[in-house]
Amino acid sequence: MRREITGFSNPTVKYLRSLREKKHRKREGKFLAEGLRLLTDARECGRVPEMLVMAGARDPHPLIDALEAAVEASGGEIIATTPDILSKITGKDNPQGVVGVFGEFDTSLAMLDRGSAKIWLVAQALRDPGNLGTMLRTGDAIGAGGLILIDDCADPFSVEAVRASMGAVFTQGIARAEWSEFLPWLRGGDGQLVAASLREAVPYRGAPYMAPCFVMVGNESRGLPEEYEMACDLRVTMPMKGRADSLNAAVAGAVLGYEVLSAFDG
Amino acid sequence: MRREITGFSNPTVKYLRSLREKKHRKREGKFLAEGLRLLTDARECGRVPEMLVMAGARDPHPLIDALEAAVEASGGEIIATTPDILSKITGKDNPQGVVGVFGEFDTSLAMLDRGSAKIWLVAQALRDPGNLGTMLRTGDAIGAGGLILIDDCADPFSVEAVRASMGAVFTQGIARAEWSEFLPWLRGGDGQLVAASLREAVPYRGAPYMAPCFVMVGNESRGLPEEYEMACDLRVTMPMKGRADSLNAAVAGAVLGYEVLSAFDG
Repeated sequence: MRREITGFSNPTVKYLRSLREKKHRKREGKFLAEGLRLLTDARECGRVPEMLVMAGARDPHPLIDALEAAVEASGGEIIATTPDILSKITGKDNPQGVVGVFGEFDTSLAMLDRGSAKIWLVAQALRDPGNLGTMLRTGDAIGAGGLILIDDCADPFSVEAVRASMGAVFTQGIARAEWSEFLPWLRGGDGQLVAASLREAVPYRGAPYMAPCFVMVGNESRGLPEEYEMACDLRVTMPMKGRADSLNAAVAGAVLGYEVLSAFDG
Repeated sequence: MRREITGFSNPTVKYLRSLREKKHRKREGKFLAEGLRLLTDARECGRVPEMLVMAGARDPHPLIDALEAAVEASGGEIIATTPDILSKITGKDNPQGVVGVFGEFDTSLAMLDRGSAKIWLVAQALRDPGNLGTMLRTGDAIGAGGLILIDDCADPFSVEAVRASMGAVFTQGIARAEWSEFLPWLRGGDGQLVAASLREAVPYRGAPYMAPCFVMVGNESRGLPEEYEMACDLRVTMPMKGRADSLNAAVAGAVLGYEVLSAFDG
């Protein structure tokens, strides 16, 4: 189905803008992904937007044509609009030309198959959506099964997280759980829980990692609660040569994740 | 010297706000650092703000007292103001209580002593101030000498970069140069230039790194220009198990940086 929208006060414009806010995403169960590259990544992973918003007047472009065709084939809706309205929806002066609306995925732990990957990333109370998206992107690179978000984390379906994931939001598993749910779930099967720590820890390089390995990082300001660290099967230290005693959370997850990958792949 | 400011229209308030913008920082040669932790880090590194702005009415706090004393001892200025004006200066609803104004450092290549460290980070056309600050923070952790910013990068003295650096802006060397200056400078002494690449590259793990090692990452969207990659002494690949063919720039720099550190420290 194809519709033209030319008025700023159109309710669909309001609806699309509202999806930039978490409470509206949650109520609708939908999220936005912006830009041709991201939407093409999604399409190639078999994720087609329910609604595709684009400039009505445009030059032919094979990737946009392919997106349009995929949305039409799956019964989705195509909205043709003006550059000004696209700017209003995206909040950017130069919007990237296409915006897709996707249904949020089920993010319960039960959806994860821990045997499907040797590495999983876990983040606790991660507040920065850019860090969250970066962890998804890193997870894709190291062949992780997905990202498990513990306690009160940023929203993986926020525009910023989706953008920073560079498409990995469509390829990585994502689960959200309280610690009190996560720990029993983890202990209900195989799985080694690992975190960087200053307490009774061994050097991260060459540590005895075992698959499936769950690499956990903590909140940007406070790190992991001591109780969570002590529940780990393995605590590792990374060299800190300077004044600081910690790394950016997404960086710590990546350095550890690549070390674990190296241990498994030799 | 101590001054009270209670009016929003005070020219000092306007001046402080202006330092959030690059053109004003450049004209004044000053930058802002916000928050007690950051300012305490700076003080412990011997960097005392020229101007310290704080709430006029406050509970006693030993770290704020120490800051005040250091600023007074160095002949700086102390501005006591209201929470509302602090909010206006920082653009935050709950400002972190203290703001310092520092003189920008000389960021010419000539200021760097390449023999003072075994690792240096290099970023080309890095646009995101958060990534820039994160690279400074990582550089501190791996004992790098500093960060060299090639071509048109984000401003290391922006509030976002300073914040993301977690104080490393005060400990790491920072230089800014065009590629056409950097390459002759590099070749004028010892130094191995290394980048992640898909071209004629060897695995990053166990590659023959040599000190001083200059680890270079490229622009967030475009990566490094081919010419820059080909000028490297060593090109390395990192495993990419998923759909993506690249990592976040700050993550790539960190994973490579820790690998180089491991090669040197054994």
